[in-house]
Amino acid sequence: MTEFDALRDKQAIAAVCYRYAFALDARDWTALRTCFTADATAYYRDQHATQGYPAIETRIRSALAPLSSTQHLIGNVLVTLAGDAADSVCYLQAQHVRPGTDGGDMFIIAGRYLDRFVRTPDGWQIAQRRFETFWTEGNPAVTAR
Amino acid sequence: MTEFDALRDKQAIAAVCYRYAFALDARDWTALRTCFTADATAYYRDQHATQGYPAIETRIRSALAPLSSTQHLIGNVLVTLAGDAADSVCYLQAQHVRPGTDGGDMFIIAGRYLDRFVRTPDGWQIAQRRFETFWTEGNPAVTAR
Amino acid sequence: MTEFDALRDKQAIAAVCYRYAFALDARDWTALRTCFTADATAYYRDQHATQGYPAIETRIRSALAPLSSTQHLIGNVLVTLAGDAADSVCYLQAQHVRPGTDGGDMFIIAGRYLDRFVRTPDGWQIAQRRFETFWTEGNPAVTAR
Repeated sequence: MTEFDALRDKQAIAAVCYRYAFALDARDWTALRTCFTADATAYYRDQHATQGYPAIETRIRSALAPLSSTQHLIGNVLVTLAGDAADSVCYLQAQHVRPGTDGGDMFIIAGRYLDRFVRTPDGWQIAQRRFETFWTEGNPAVTAR
Repeated sequence: MTEFDALRDKQAIAAVCYRYAFALDARDWTALRTCFTADATAYYRDQHATQGYPAIETRIRSALAPLSSTQHLIGNVLVTLAGDAADSVCYLQAQHVRPGTDGGDMFIIAGRYLDRFVRTPDGWQIAQRRFETFWTEGNPAVTAR
Repeated sequence: MTEFDALRDKQAIAAVCYRYAFALDARDWTALRTCFTADATAYYRDQHATQGYPAIETRIRSALAPLSSTQHLIGNVLVTLAGDAADSVCYLQAQHVRPGTDGGDMFIIAGRYLDRFVRTPDGWQIAQRRFETFWTEGNPAVTAR
């Protein structure tokens, strides 16, 4: 791998992290699908394994359904390449808005994504994503289904 | 366009998004001017077209005048190149501070910029910027003129 | 310096800014050490000079000791290269959490780091870091020692 390849790969992996956020916030499932391998595994707040892209999409749709608006702000994307795979970590602040919720309209989760990326014919994709929470603020009822 | 050109152009466009934020927060109009083409169009919260750089600067000066401090935190810059033009989207959290405002000192706007960039002899510049709000929090009177 | 070198150096410097944040939030002093030159100077909120890496680590350890959790979200990293040195500015939102603190559990600081980087045999490192505060929110007692 040349130095140029490394730079391009890191940039491409960060772009997937951003595309994931945009896909969630726009409820764009076609875009979301491009972020994952078909057999990807994700671990969200309860740390149970969600296996395969269809289950991941179902889980995300369910989490977002009650919300009128979300913003997943991503920062600090740091990628470590290992040939056709890569480990990546990034920070996240996710704001969830649900007007009229008793106890307040906002719920914020701050955390990080720990990702395993693989290079595929369709570009870099997430093979494993683990979400870890640092703290939350606001009204948890906002995200209740 | 080579792969290297694409990487360099994306990096340069993200840098303009950051320079715009720094210019606003430092009230640095010389720096702000370098971010836009002379005939740029901007759409801010009311979605009316602001035509030409002088009008854009006037509008921004007016919005910032009552505030003692702002921070425009940018994330998720994703650029799609098309030769000498580019579409870009980025996320934004803007904090506005005005001590002593009745009802609270802070007003936060979360949203995104949808940009059209063009390559010019002075580098990549914004030809069109559209701001869309996701949510706001705090005391709107903070930003009142 | 070629255009490629410039791109790679800017990416490497941004990565150090992210590594610094991860090191603080994970209390990873081995990682933190790699971010600074041995004789680095830092200016934190009181703007007194903290001289040399050992003193910087001591200062950071002391600031973080009372906190159960922190997140240093970094954005807007803008680098200006000058051969084997570079000036860099980035934005920061630091959330400090200390459950059970009288008056509230959270304290947020928004500001920027103004950095002087130098190229060393161990990669780009911070020779001088100055922290400037834009605003704070929440309960200052959270960060009290």
